[in-house]
Amino acid sequence: MRTDLCDRLGIEHPMVAFTPSEHVAAAVSRAGGLGVLGCVRFNDAAELDAVLDWMDRNTGDRPYGVDVVMPSTVPTEGSDVDLAAMVPQQHRDFVRRTLDRLGVPELPAGQETGDAVLGWLHSVARSHVDVALRHPVALIANALGSPPPDVIGRAHERGVQVAALAGKAEHARRHVEQGVDLVVAQGHEAGGHTGEIATMVLVPEIVDAVGDRAPVLAAGGIGSGRQIAAALALGASGAWMGSYWLATREYAQTTGGSAMQRALVAAGSDDTVRTRIYTGKPARLLKTRWTEAWSEPDAPEPLPMPLQNILVSEAHQRISAAEDPEVVSMPVGQVVGRMNAVRGVEELMGELLREADDTLARLGRLR
Amino acid sequence: MRTDLCDRLGIEHPMVAFTPSEHVAAAVSRAGGLGVLGCVRFNDAAELDAVLDWMDRNTGDRPYGVDVVMPSTVPTEGSDVDLAAMVPQQHRDFVRRTLDRLGVPELPAGQETGDAVLGWLHSVARSHVDVALRHPVALIANALGSPPPDVIGRAHERGVQVAALAGKAEHARRHVEQGVDLVVAQGHEAGGHTGEIATMVLVPEIVDAVGDRAPVLAAGGIGSGRQIAAALALGASGAWMGSYWLATREYAQTTGGSAMQRALVAAGSDDTVRTRIYTGKPARLLKTRWTEAWSEPDAPEPLPMPLQNILVSEAHQRISAAEDPEVVSMPVGQVVGRMNAVRGVEELMGELLREADDTLARLGRLR
Repeated sequence: MRTDLCDRLGIEHPMVAFTPSEHVAAAVSRAGGLGVLGCVRFNDAAELDAVLDWMDRNTGDRPYGVDVVMPSTVPTEGSDVDLAAMVPQQHRDFVRRTLDRLGVPELPAGQETGDAVLGWLHSVARSHVDVALRHPVALIANALGSPPPDVIGRAHERGVQVAALAGKAEHARRHVEQGVDLVVAQGHEAGGHTGEIATMVLVPEIVDAVGDRAPVLAAGGIGSGRQIAAALALGASGAWMGSYWLATREYAQTTGGSAMQRALVAAGSDDTVRTRIYTGKPARLLKTRWTEAWSEPDAPEPLPMPLQNILVSEAHQRISAAEDPEVVSMPVGQVVGRMNAVRGVEELMGELLREADDTLARLGRLR
Repeated sequence: MRTDLCDRLGIEHPMVAFTPSEHVAAAVSRAGGLGVLGCVRFNDAAELDAVLDWMDRNTGDRPYGVDVVMPSTVPTEGSDVDLAAMVPQQHRDFVRRTLDRLGVPELPAGQETGDAVLGWLHSVARSHVDVALRHPVALIANALGSPPPDVIGRAHERGVQVAALAGKAEHARRHVEQGVDLVVAQGHEAGGHTGEIATMVLVPEIVDAVGDRAPVLAAGGIGSGRQIAAALALGASGAWMGSYWLATREYAQTTGGSAMQRALVAAGSDDTVRTRIYTGKPARLLKTRWTEAWSEPDAPEPLPMPLQNILVSEAHQRISAAEDPEVVSMPVGQVVGRMNAVRGVEELMGELLREADDTLARLGRLR
């Protein structure tokens, strides 16, 4: 199963894995797909640099990529302290009250509260790009659409392809006009930031809009070989999968988080919710007692990006430390219903490829 | 392109068209698919009988089916008058105020307000089944899941297959255990009543749950041959399409409604909204000034089924008579983005089949 995407990225199989885990990303690249490391968790560029050094040694000389969260125009932004001052007390009170009610302990005494995730800030995302371009990356993907023109230009100078996520055909058109090489058509059922239009509808719409100028990757809901084949049927050149890798042994190597993995393995496809509580923009999360609390009558409206993530930053650390599968804050797509055990990346890749190939063979017999 | 569905229903192509228009249903059956006539609009069983007589003469001796809206258990229900008394005045006031604000005229003097749609009532849906079973129907589909056991039994005695819509795998399992022959896996992006889980995720999940016992039809978002091929890739035995036929000349023959068709043709895939305002249960509608009015701060919560439809029944008639494309009340799926002209059913069927076949050929070359 080869498409134009394979030649373009120098990969064996038309499968791209987005993941915050370097262990997952490297394993996917080694297995013949393209591992794409999410950078948003790196507040410190030097830390990202060290992880990419690790990637350079652990992908078996196969290509890999990075994913940043960068608006195409530079917004007004302040320091961490300025932004924190913009979070209303009412919101802080709700978060504190909710964590108490859900039995989430304070962080252990002496354990410092870490910084909020700042990767959403333009300046921080730009530092990620600077670091990535010093490594032999094959792809820079941007979760917020087209990166600024100078970033696209610098990537192209180094022979690095640029991908951008799109939830509407008009976004995809704009991305391609601004020089983006690959469009990721991400449907409503995807984890994390996601739009209204479902993958089944969105992918052919974006292929019709830009497919003659840029390969389209299908994202949202994909976690089986049948779905990869369906993505190809819709006109995509490959599949972009994110959530599916959260229930892997390699993911646990990076983040720990066994309660989170237990919660994912137990969840069905109807156990997600699309909400603004994670970042301020609509994102699909695992439905847990934490997300449900934000639907209660006493819950405030989530704040805009980046304030909401600053608001919930300490809560995320407390929740993560508490290791309670019923109180988890985790972006995941509806594909969570297919994630029923913690397994290894290589095994999952093999299974996906075999099923995709079997599906193409089955479809061939229908003609 | 033949699947087990073709043999089972005696049709040439694995495509089922759900439509309230007998002209569309007959044209689809004549073109080798299965036309399934929606019965919910027939308050009077004799009227349905006459329309099915017409179907018997106009399908070219090809099979056709009917679709009813019948809960599997008999709910408490009253007469039209009893039910009308349960509609709060506050809701009536909001509807009247909104129609005035949107410039929707009163019905012309002397024109009587028709009855509300009563097809949602169990007794009325049962009368539809009684009538249908006097005709040579090949299929009875139920939009609300498994019909009651005696209905399934009577259908089977006459060699009529029973289909049921499902928005979750657990529903599909229950349907099959209760004797349903075919499951329609209807994703979030579908028009009308619809659940949370998107077609890309739902179809393989339902195939895995019941596919060894009942063929599964994919529904929700389908309006191209690529999507039909994708549905087959996901494991479906065929496609169930509803919204797509609303922008046809045959549909206009049944209902008129040129403003409605103009609105559909102009709409994009992001111009729908899932709301309870049509029937009291979540249903996807075209987003217009009418649906937007129900999101305003002064709008009441929609009433439960069947009261909400009784509440908006006169409004629907006024809206329909007003012929304003900006004020339309119409269930339609996200596939509305692909409906860009009013065309004939035969032409659309030919195009869908050609593209599906081309897609299967293209996929065959990827191996």
